Amino acid sequence: MKNSPNSASCLNKESYLPLTPPYLEIEERVRYSETDQMGVAHNKGYFEWFEIGRTEYCRKKQIPYKDIEARGHALVVVEAFCRYRKPLRYDQPFLIRVALQEMTPKKAVFRYEIRTKDDRALVAHGYTTHIAVNKKGEVCPLPEDLVEKIKRPLAD
Amino acid sequence: MKNSPNSASCLNKESYLPLTPPYLEIEERVRYSETDQMGVAHNKGYFEWFEIGRTEYCRKKQIPYKDIEARGHALVVVEAFCRYRKPLRYDQPFLIRVALQEMTPKKAVFRYEIRTKDDRALVAHGYTTHIAVNKKGEVCPLPEDLVEKIKRPLAD
Amino acid sequence: MKNSPNSASCLNKESYLPLTPPYLEIEERVRYSETDQMGVAHNKGYFEWFEIGRTEYCRKKQIPYKDIEARGHALVVVEAFCRYRKPLRYDQPFLIRVALQEMTPKKAVFRYEIRTKDDRALVAHGYTTHIAVNKKGEVCPLPEDLVEKIKRPLAD
Amino acid sequence: MKNSPNSASCLNKESYLPLTPPYLEIEERVRYSETDQMGVAHNKGYFEWFEIGRTEYCRKKQIPYKDIEARGHALVVVEAFCRYRKPLRYDQPFLIRVALQEMTPKKAVFRYEIRTKDDRALVAHGYTTHIAVNKKGEVCPLPEDLVEKIKRPLAD
Repeated sequence: MKNSPNSASCLNKESYLPLTPPYLEIEERVRYSETDQMGVAHNKGYFEWFEIGRTEYCRKKQIPYKDIEARGHALVVVEAFCRYRKPLRYDQPFLIRVALQEMTPKKAVFRYEIRTKDDRALVAHGYTTHIAVNKKGEVCPLPEDLVEKIKRPLAD
Repeated sequence: MKNSPNSASCLNKESYLPLTPPYLEIEERVRYSETDQMGVAHNKGYFEWFEIGRTEYCRKKQIPYKDIEARGHALVVVEAFCRYRKPLRYDQPFLIRVALQEMTPKKAVFRYEIRTKDDRALVAHGYTTHIAVNKKGEVCPLPEDLVEKIKRPLAD
Repeated sequence: MKNSPNSASCLNKESYLPLTPPYLEIEERVRYSETDQMGVAHNKGYFEWFEIGRTEYCRKKQIPYKDIEARGHALVVVEAFCRYRKPLRYDQPFLIRVALQEMTPKKAVFRYEIRTKDDRALVAHGYTTHIAVNKKGEVCPLPEDLVEKIKRPLAD
Repeated sequence: MKNSPNSASCLNKESYLPLTPPYLEIEERVRYSETDQMGVAHNKGYFEWFEIGRTEYCRKKQIPYKDIEARGHALVVVEAFCRYRKPLRYDQPFLIRVALQEMTPKKAVFRYEIRTKDDRALVAHGYTTHIAVNKKGEVCPLPEDLVEKIKRPLAD
């Protein structure tokens, strides 16, 4: 089939390899405003949660994302993907796990998992790909010190 | 690299094959509330626009999506993907193009494009994959008449 | 009771005076992503619809709001109020009615009504108050030409 | 002026009486997705934060809001008001303060304040009024045990 999206091929497979440590883990709860009439968290909310994940990831590396923007740089999203496996409901506590998959001066890839808090069941997983740009939105490599900080292992 | 997301491989390629007719086209404008501090439409909004696309697609096929839910069925999102190429700004008019990529009683795949209204420039493209479930969220094939209606060519 | 919000006093009254022409009317539909688990449009969405109303109002007056910002000015929201009377459901078409209540170089007040499309039933009404600021967020009167344009009657 | 919104009269007054203890206080941070192109948190987000406030308020009283809905009741929003005084920026930590203003079997009023975390500066204040309904959305008094639990003082 022409135009077939690659990732759709994994739909019925259970071949997903979970994130392994080190990753950062943040706890959140589903807001009422994040539910839809199916009674579950709406699909768009996951991309906001992924964003919380990478914000906290950068903070953990001592380079708050707002500081990156304050220095005139940004990591714009060029790809976003999410695979939903189980629903989350209003007020349900959940975990955002985030890990850096790739980091160069021009490009970053973050991976994410959403898991229930009580039994760590996999709710969703996904990734976002980012390109480094300047204030005008032009491709512009990140300064080396920022890249080094973000790349530093989480464990320390 | 283990765990590598397939789709990331297409990041720097210009190999994307645009949607070809028949597709449905809807016009919208970027809401102020959809912008972020970069001054452009935030990445999560595109998934709401995709949803508008498939709502209108079902309506066009004479089977409004609310009627599908009224009959006890739903097409839950199990995958969502978006590739962002150009930013959209507040108040900018844009087009949502949507086409049905695959439709069986158990599964549906929609493809989408976002394009500027003035020169039809490609802003983003993506897809969503859906599984048919019943009111309890259990996998449950769609009735044949619904499948047939949705599969009917757009042109008529 | 001290600290009592004034407007709460009108809760059980039917004393609301509907908007009278001239007003601007825009048609929209409830997005799936705007519903919550009650099965109705979530309360926060109304403030996005009000915003659509004033965007279209300014456009109608030949002074698109983006042009106001492009000239270094903004009308920031300092008060927002909504009274909800009837729910709206997914895919339901509705009308946003908007009128300018007050306009000076320093301040603007818009009033809004949300009505069902089919029978014009009152769904909600509200208002937003705005202060004119410059790019730094400092209070700064709007230029006279902008004020005059926005104040011009809708009818023409 | 006919149709004049009462609350607009307080626009230039500094007569606001702050919440006094007991109130519940929750800490949050501004999400990137909550900013708009002015570079500040968008006005609609405050109503989501108010909602977080009352969710946590009910939990604190040992009657999680989801349990109220599980018992077939709901407190639908019939009025929402917010007065914005200072902007909040991406990643800025802030406090949601919430107090119960009024609680009867048929009606509840919550008051809220948003304050900066670092110096407790008042960012916004507002209220929401709620009517008790059943699953069909019909007015229906809350059971006495729920009312009593919610009304119990926060301090204990």
